[in-house]
Amino acid sequence: MAKNRSTIDREVDNGFDSIDHAVSDEEHNKISYNGSTSMNKLRLKEEEISVERVFQHLLVPSWKNQLTVRAFVVSFFLSVLFSFIVMKLNLTTGIIPSLNVSAGLLGFFFVKTWTKFLEKSNILKQPFTRQENTVIQTCVVASSGIAFSGGFGSYLFGMSEHIARSSSDTSDFKDPKLGWIIAFLFVVSFLGLLSIVPLRKIMIIDFKLTYPSGTATAHLINSFHTPQGAKLAKKQVKELGKFFSLSFLWGFFQWFYTATDSCGFQAFPSLGLKAYQNRFYFDFSAIYIGVGMICPYIINISVLIGGILSWGLMWPLIENKEGHWYKKGLGQSSLLGIQGYRVFIAIAMILGDGLYNFCKVLSHTFFGLYKQYRTKQRENVLPVADQDSSSPPSQLSYDDQRRTQVFVKDQIPTWVAIGGYITIAAISTATLPHIFHQLKWYYILVIYLIAPTLAFCNAYGSGLTDWSLASTYGKLAIFTIGAWAGASHGGVLASLAACGVMMNIVSTASDLMQDFKTGYLTLASPRAMFVSQVIGTSMGCVISPCVFWIFYKAFPDLGTTGSEYPAPYAIVYRNMAILGVEGFSHLPKNCLLLCYILFGAAIVINLIKDLLGKRGRFIPLPMAMAIPFYLGPYFAIDMCVGSLILFVWEKVNKVKADAYGPAVASGLICGDGIWSLPASILALAGVKPPICMKFLSRATNDRVDVFLGN
Amino acid sequence: MAKNRSTIDREVDNGFDSIDHAVSDEEHNKISYNGSTSMNKLRLKEEEISVERVFQHLLVPSWKNQLTVRAFVVSFFLSVLFSFIVMKLNLTTGIIPSLNVSAGLLGFFFVKTWTKFLEKSNILKQPFTRQENTVIQTCVVASSGIAFSGGFGSYLFGMSEHIARSSSDTSDFKDPKLGWIIAFLFVVSFLGLLSIVPLRKIMIIDFKLTYPSGTATAHLINSFHTPQGAKLAKKQVKELGKFFSLSFLWGFFQWFYTATDSCGFQAFPSLGLKAYQNRFYFDFSAIYIGVGMICPYIINISVLIGGILSWGLMWPLIENKEGHWYKKGLGQSSLLGIQGYRVFIAIAMILGDGLYNFCKVLSHTFFGLYKQYRTKQRENVLPVADQDSSSPPSQLSYDDQRRTQVFVKDQIPTWVAIGGYITIAAISTATLPHIFHQLKWYYILVIYLIAPTLAFCNAYGSGLTDWSLASTYGKLAIFTIGAWAGASHGGVLASLAACGVMMNIVSTASDLMQDFKTGYLTLASPRAMFVSQVIGTSMGCVISPCVFWIFYKAFPDLGTTGSEYPAPYAIVYRNMAILGVEGFSHLPKNCLLLCYILFGAAIVINLIKDLLGKRGRFIPLPMAMAIPFYLGPYFAIDMCVGSLILFVWEKVNKVKADAYGPAVASGLICGDGIWSLPASILALAGVKPPICMKFLSRATNDRVDVFLGN
Repeated sequence: MAKNRSTIDREVDNGFDSIDHAVSDEEHNKISYNGSTSMNKLRLKEEEISVERVFQHLLVPSWKNQLTVRAFVVSFFLSVLFSFIVMKLNLTTGIIPSLNVSAGLLGFFFVKTWTKFLEKSNILKQPFTRQENTVIQTCVVASSGIAFSGGFGSYLFGMSEHIARSSSDTSDFKDPKLGWIIAFLFVVSFLGLLSIVPLRKIMIIDFKLTYPSGTATAHLINSFHTPQGAKLAKKQVKELGKFFSLSFLWGFFQWFYTATDSCGFQAFPSLGLKAYQNRFYFDFSAIYIGVGMICPYIINISVLIGGILSWGLMWPLIENKEGHWYKKGLGQSSLLGIQGYRVFIAIAMILGDGLYNFCKVLSHTFFGLYKQYRTKQRENVLPVADQDSSSPPSQLSYDDQRRTQVFVKDQIPTWVAIGGYITIAAISTATLPHIFHQLKWYYILVIYLIAPTLAFCNAYGSGLTDWSLASTYGKLAIFTIGAWAGASHGGVLASLAACGVMMNIVSTASDLMQDFKTGYLTLASPRAMFVSQVIGTSMGCVISPCVFWIFYKAFPDLGTTGSEYPAPYAIVYRNMAILGVEGFSHLPKNCLLLCYILFGAAIVINLIKDLLGKRGRFIPLPMAMAIPFYLGPYFAIDMCVGSLILFVWEKVNKVKADAYGPAVASGLICGDGIWSLPASILALAGVKPPICMKFLSRATNDRVDVFLGN
Repeated sequence: MAKNRSTIDREVDNGFDSIDHAVSDEEHNKISYNGSTSMNKLRLKEEEISVERVFQHLLVPSWKNQLTVRAFVVSFFLSVLFSFIVMKLNLTTGIIPSLNVSAGLLGFFFVKTWTKFLEKSNILKQPFTRQENTVIQTCVVASSGIAFSGGFGSYLFGMSEHIARSSSDTSDFKDPKLGWIIAFLFVVSFLGLLSIVPLRKIMIIDFKLTYPSGTATAHLINSFHTPQGAKLAKKQVKELGKFFSLSFLWGFFQWFYTATDSCGFQAFPSLGLKAYQNRFYFDFSAIYIGVGMICPYIINISVLIGGILSWGLMWPLIENKEGHWYKKGLGQSSLLGIQGYRVFIAIAMILGDGLYNFCKVLSHTFFGLYKQYRTKQRENVLPVADQDSSSPPSQLSYDDQRRTQVFVKDQIPTWVAIGGYITIAAISTATLPHIFHQLKWYYILVIYLIAPTLAFCNAYGSGLTDWSLASTYGKLAIFTIGAWAGASHGGVLASLAACGVMMNIVSTASDLMQDFKTGYLTLASPRAMFVSQVIGTSMGCVISPCVFWIFYKAFPDLGTTGSEYPAPYAIVYRNMAILGVEGFSHLPKNCLLLCYILFGAAIVINLIKDLLGKRGRFIPLPMAMAIPFYLGPYFAIDMCVGSLILFVWEKVNKVKADAYGPAVASGLICGDGIWSLPASILALAGVKPPICMKFLSRATNDRVDVFLGN
């Protein structure tokens, strides 16, 4: 019931390509295992102690019985909850942490409460199994995954007039409308799933890919269904609930003082007014404190270093050149002025990091495939001798045997997948040019011909490295389709739409393969998983646009720099599209040079990090450093506060911090995240906060006091 | 080392005459014992288990060895600390909670750390004994007691021009000057001590008066010197230190946003702007949250009820009569307008409560003395029979025998006390008219003739009921001397000065007799106690005026309604003096009628409370209700938040709450209190806070934004 790796991937996709990779093996496991220390031990002894023997006495329900109505009801509510949270994160900074523990805990909690209640009333027909739990998890992941891959904070919102006006190419735009967004999502979201389903046995059983996040989620779910795991989960849910309430009430309290964007706690110059002008302040945001508690220390530190480098050093220096490097009086938001440096240097660093890691993961993928091929060949050459030494009885553990047996039992016919893919691709090719008239049918056809290969690469790569390249494939689509279409044929919109098509396929492919791994480890039927994925994706295609629509209608200044919801990636994606179409002609002076330098720096830093190996873990991550370039370091301070809290907690009581840290963080994230629902409803109803908490310098305050006649 | 009952008395004197009484027996003990649960048990078994047998193996040092240099060094620093805290409380609301636990803990902690350190260095000459601890406690009580009885928040500051200007009689004033304040305190502060010293044996041994706070302090000190008590104390000190730092840093953080009095957290409209206008808001004050945690629930509730009645009901209704009952446009601070109702109705209620309790305690005192007299008479009639049944071996426990033996060993010659009293009274009579030329020498002589009797009454009364009437005797002096001098002869100043003379004598008398009780129970030598009292009083006569002087110089708007330091009792005392001298002629319309009603109501409420006995504990205390009448209920909200925290804590973990609640509260109080030292130094150095955190309504904010050109 957790959207374990999906959110990790999403974080990755959203600009963290390098982060999860760099910290993958130790850090990811840490994140995921934190949720359950008892499971942690279980995992450590995995080789000696069999998990499946613990569950031996429990019957695995048939695939139809794994798909219960209650599971989908819970999934629906959790999907709405997490869509709100992901949407809020999308639109504020674009940093989306792993919400697997909270999703896992909440899903378990709701169904368990419900079944406990029925048990007491003696009307429980079917006990709550870990297979059902996996089905919920899969459905929620599929559904809330759309909130990210739908591009509401990136390519899709980047098409809007509002974003176009703050970019350098205002000629072409397409404002969001509920109708076309839902239609668009429905015709592109299922392709990733269908393109990858036939390959599940090869990836999971034959290649034995790791899928670290999927594995971690499976361990979490397994642990919940042991007696001591359930006990710990109950306590964790209690902590989560406590901090959920606190965080929600805090959001509510803050609301009253936020008459305008420059009012309230979000504009609290907690480090002084001078620092505030350079966006160094702690903004009391519970959600980013929670995010900081979940993200590995190195990410938080990287974001802070990036913020200090850019807003503490580079931007002030460049601003000194105002009048020389760029025209005076352009203000803070013109791309021809200081804002141009911020946006394009951030893009350069993101692309540099993306390129490096793209090459790296691709080479891993090909190397991995080559090894598989070699092994196969050797097996063919020495069939008898090899079969003796590597035959199942001697090599496969009890767990693996049992899991493989269940995994291959329920099949999904290949013709369903291939037929489905071709049908939907055809519908899609016919429909999409009607939605985006700039996107010609032959662009789409080309994408759909290449997509399955890329989907496979991405699913294979994330299986090896726990790291989805979806956003990088999306950027690839932006530049190729943009260059192909050209400026005169609405290349900007065409390339953004192409990015959407590509990202949806590639992202869901890797997400859902992770789910199959989870299902494999929890003995869930692949057929049940597939149905759950289809239902979840359908849910997401409706829920996510609706959630976005609420934000879009409730906050008219969505996407404005300095507002509550700046949607930083929307402007970044649009400007990438413009770069792809028009080249570098309109950049301010020396901006291109700086872009080259930081593009190179991102590659070099990554290279050094990888060459140093374990000692490289203290080297910051370029991708994380790039995010505050545009936004400012305020959220980095929130995140570092979260880190600090966790750090102190770990020093004081390591066991408790490990057991409850993720629950507390999830509570903070969920509470503040879900507060955005009532906040948007209030905004939609025209209820505005009554008070402005304003911060004035002593001198300005004196003037205001005179003005107000005090 | 704790200023146990002294602060309780001070709180009482400061307008809480009824409070401590009403809750005295259970509540006070609760407050005092909270500090040490182990002691709590010890006390409960007092009858069965002898405390002195626990300490049997320890030698009692000679009285000279009880007076160590380190004790007075620690006393000096604690005196400064507590003078700051008491002064801040004096000048903000006048509510001073019992700081015994914090003083006790801190004194023990400092000397213990010091002796531990010496022990490790192998140069410890004299171990830390409970007698030395009592000496510190006595010295700190005597010293910081002056911060209250010096009247810096009441009669003495009420003489100043600033307060005079906001009263209805501006003819006569005397601004504070360091010189005359110190001189004044030196000539009046020792009289209380000297007048009561010869009676200590009668009160402690013959009358066996309870002195609940003094007894509680003794138990606290005894408990510290048992092994498990010391262990708990160490943990409590840790908690205290943690919350001390938090509270101090919070005060520091708040400072930055307080460019003017209407800025910052102290002006946070946490319940909305409308409520803020009626002074209903939570002002994030750590000190009053701590005070709320120490004060019994009924006090906090009473203050809140008083606030709701006055600022929620009475004042808004009276303000509707603006133009009828009083002239329009007088503003908020004219005594002829709404402010008059606030001040005089509060005075009426304080006087009503004071009168009731004065009569009650006096009747208790006389009834007690009558019983003592009867017992004596019976002893004389039946000397032999009685001696048999009440002779030490049969009646006195081991503890009492041992304590009496120590208590009567070191004598203080009576001629020292009487000679001292006459000498100082003579000096005082000659000097005081030079300080206050309105105060004629014959007023002083009369006061000094009556004072010893009143001092005895107060010491006896507080021994019975734990409740000092000092401020009531002070008010008595105001009205009698005011009426005697009359308006034409500077009666206002004469009566305020007379109040000071009277309060100092009466207050120190009861304070110090409590100390003798503590000394009796901890086997401290009365001679050592006396010396410590003299040294402590001398310290206080210098420290308190200096601390006041810092506040006075640092905050020029000291005593202004609505400012950070409104010093509410200064204006109340001055207006009482004016009432005494000039009568009720200048009160606004219907004010006198309302005063009579609430004067009567105060008496009736007290009567009902006493008649109901134990069931009367839910009836609010009129004295506590009167304080917010003038100030507004904002601090009541802080205090209720403190109550709520403690209440929830007790529900969650009663044992922990009992053990650490007082330490946490003390930490909050001390941290915020001592922050006023750097805050005043910053103000003196002309460093002003850089930022104003302002709260504007949405409409005003829009106007300001236009004005500022945003």
